[in-house]
Amino acid sequence: MSDTTGKTIKCKAAVCWGAGQDLKIEEVEVAPPQAHEVRIHILHTGICHTDEYTRSGKDPEGLFPVILGHEGGGIVESVGEGVDSVKVGDHVIPLYTAECRECKFCKSGKTNLCGKVRSTQGQGLMPNSTSRFKCKGKDIYHFMGTSTFSQYTVVADVSVVAINPAAPLARACLLGCGITTAWGAVTKQPGIKGSSVAVFGCGCIGLGVIQTSSLVGASRIIAIDTNPNKEAWAKKMGATDFVNPAKLPAGKRIQDYLIEITDGGLDYTFDATGNVTVMRSALEACHKGWGVSTIIGVAAAGQEISTRPFQLVTGRTWRGTAFGGVKGRTELPGLVDDYLAGKVKVDEYVTHHRKFAEINEGFHDMHSGDCIRCVVDMS
Amino acid sequence: MSDTTGKTIKCKAAVCWGAGQDLKIEEVEVAPPQAHEVRIHILHTGICHTDEYTRSGKDPEGLFPVILGHEGGGIVESVGEGVDSVKVGDHVIPLYTAECRECKFCKSGKTNLCGKVRSTQGQGLMPNSTSRFKCKGKDIYHFMGTSTFSQYTVVADVSVVAINPAAPLARACLLGCGITTAWGAVTKQPGIKGSSVAVFGCGCIGLGVIQTSSLVGASRIIAIDTNPNKEAWAKKMGATDFVNPAKLPAGKRIQDYLIEITDGGLDYTFDATGNVTVMRSALEACHKGWGVSTIIGVAAAGQEISTRPFQLVTGRTWRGTAFGGVKGRTELPGLVDDYLAGKVKVDEYVTHHRKFAEINEGFHDMHSGDCIRCVVDMS
Repeated sequence: MSDTTGKTIKCKAAVCWGAGQDLKIEEVEVAPPQAHEVRIHILHTGICHTDEYTRSGKDPEGLFPVILGHEGGGIVESVGEGVDSVKVGDHVIPLYTAECRECKFCKSGKTNLCGKVRSTQGQGLMPNSTSRFKCKGKDIYHFMGTSTFSQYTVVADVSVVAINPAAPLARACLLGCGITTAWGAVTKQPGIKGSSVAVFGCGCIGLGVIQTSSLVGASRIIAIDTNPNKEAWAKKMGATDFVNPAKLPAGKRIQDYLIEITDGGLDYTFDATGNVTVMRSALEACHKGWGVSTIIGVAAAGQEISTRPFQLVTGRTWRGTAFGGVKGRTELPGLVDDYLAGKVKVDEYVTHHRKFAEINEGFHDMHSGDCIRCVVDMS
Repeated sequence: MSDTTGKTIKCKAAVCWGAGQDLKIEEVEVAPPQAHEVRIHILHTGICHTDEYTRSGKDPEGLFPVILGHEGGGIVESVGEGVDSVKVGDHVIPLYTAECRECKFCKSGKTNLCGKVRSTQGQGLMPNSTSRFKCKGKDIYHFMGTSTFSQYTVVADVSVVAINPAAPLARACLLGCGITTAWGAVTKQPGIKGSSVAVFGCGCIGLGVIQTSSLVGASRIIAIDTNPNKEAWAKKMGATDFVNPAKLPAGKRIQDYLIEITDGGLDYTFDATGNVTVMRSALEACHKGWGVSTIIGVAAAGQEISTRPFQLVTGRTWRGTAFGGVKGRTELPGLVDDYLAGKVKVDEYVTHHRKFAEINEGFHDMHSGDCIRCVVDMS
């Protein structure tokens, strides 16, 4: 029990006051956790494209003012009544995909999408429909149930998991989103061992898919990116081939090229771009009869995917995954242990570091072609 | 060995001389089967929407003049060199989806799409790139490798299967396409037992999906059709609910209505309409997290399916099937036995009978709302 228990904490947070605005470091008040809530001292956080999507104002469901951030690592400062899954001092990762183990979804055994806190999380609020953040007398919205761009945040107890404290939070925080998403997208898809794989987009998620495909024993891993600098990255993670669609002969579609060089197409493809045109290419690059294409990237609002139904009737499958299908509370501790055991790469993804005061520069880093992940030191 | 062996047979066939034209009963010459070919005396044939699609001229790959038909039953008249899978006198069903058991596809264990005769079949020719049909001195194209609208036809030996001769060919012929497609679409999709199912379209295939879903133990089967007369049909085949989308309140989308009445959506949906808008509804009526939608219907050329990628990212799967994923040579004999044992309904689907001379009327029957299948007596 710390001396802040039960009290409102004043700390710094990066507030986004409106759509399209830069974040502003402000002093905020973080109320104590209520029943089944956990207050976390955030030490490090990654910056992900989903944060930028909402910040930019492109997300029609974005709410402002808000504290963004969903890829964090921290230490439990205090817990509300009835919390027994984590305790003060635990090293934890907040989970934007909750796991209550009680709802229809959790009990189904078929999905990691939990229904428990979904509606209030989407409204930028805690489960009792109020916010724990105040700044300049105004309530500030939560984001994805995590709001890791604050030195202290409050999350539902179903939205946080304790991990091995030996894991450096400056790296393990990345397991809160990108790398875990990629890992799950591959490991939860049976059949990749011995199969051919194509990965569209070599950002954090794409590289994670390459790494995991290599780990599980894919026979061929083709990485695809229009940035030639990504070739070295992709090869480092285990890609056997690299294709730059921008370098194909004029009029040659990437899916047709891939079908040619793989004698009929890929067994598995993954979209890690969020671009709906690329999603179509990924599907159509699949082998007739059995190819499976998985959408991981998040597309902009209003955009749609399309293809000829013949593509599906002739045996291709189109699917998607959120947080890689990973149940965070159940599976993240093991993944952290795999990281500590050297089985899963994480450190390699951190190309940029920023102090909290430089968080807006961190957003700019993300847009530079040489950035995989920028980690922000919240101290 | 019959006295026609090795000789060209003169018989009647329904020739479609050009796109959009009615069929014309003509005297045709049917050449003897070459190596690995089988000549079949067709006794009965169903008429299917795919025949009409090509006849109408809407199929951009349609070739003319052609002998259509792909849902037939007959008796082997003679076989070419090297044929050992069927013999003279066998009761057989021609297969538009071949099964060679030697190609990459057949050996994969993942698909029923066989590559052996695909390209020549698509060109309306036998595997050696020639036709066995002549009429008025002109070569006539084959159709789907079967051309059952002829009293005698020639097919590749990988495109025909012998069945129990106890099965009346006037009914068993329907196992050459519609009912088998529906049966396979359901039985090859694991998990339908105990699950909820929605079937869009109550034609032959839709009713077959309903029947088979009931057979494997689906917990709820919702049939959807704009023709109110289909309710009785659907219920007879095992549907628990019938929904007429045309009767919903204005502005209410069928997928939203289905999600409401099923507490979140269906476990499995099937499109048996060929309408791309309906295909989207079928996908979006699926339950978040695990719903699987299967496209069975064949859409018109150039039409595309579309949806928001969010539908897939949140756990829905979009797939399709051709001939229900059934390997005809391996599986049809068992299905015929199931029919003879009363486990699989077939007789019920035959609502209309036509003499060969009335085959064009059979096409008109198909468009009437009370027709499930019209079977043509080729004698």
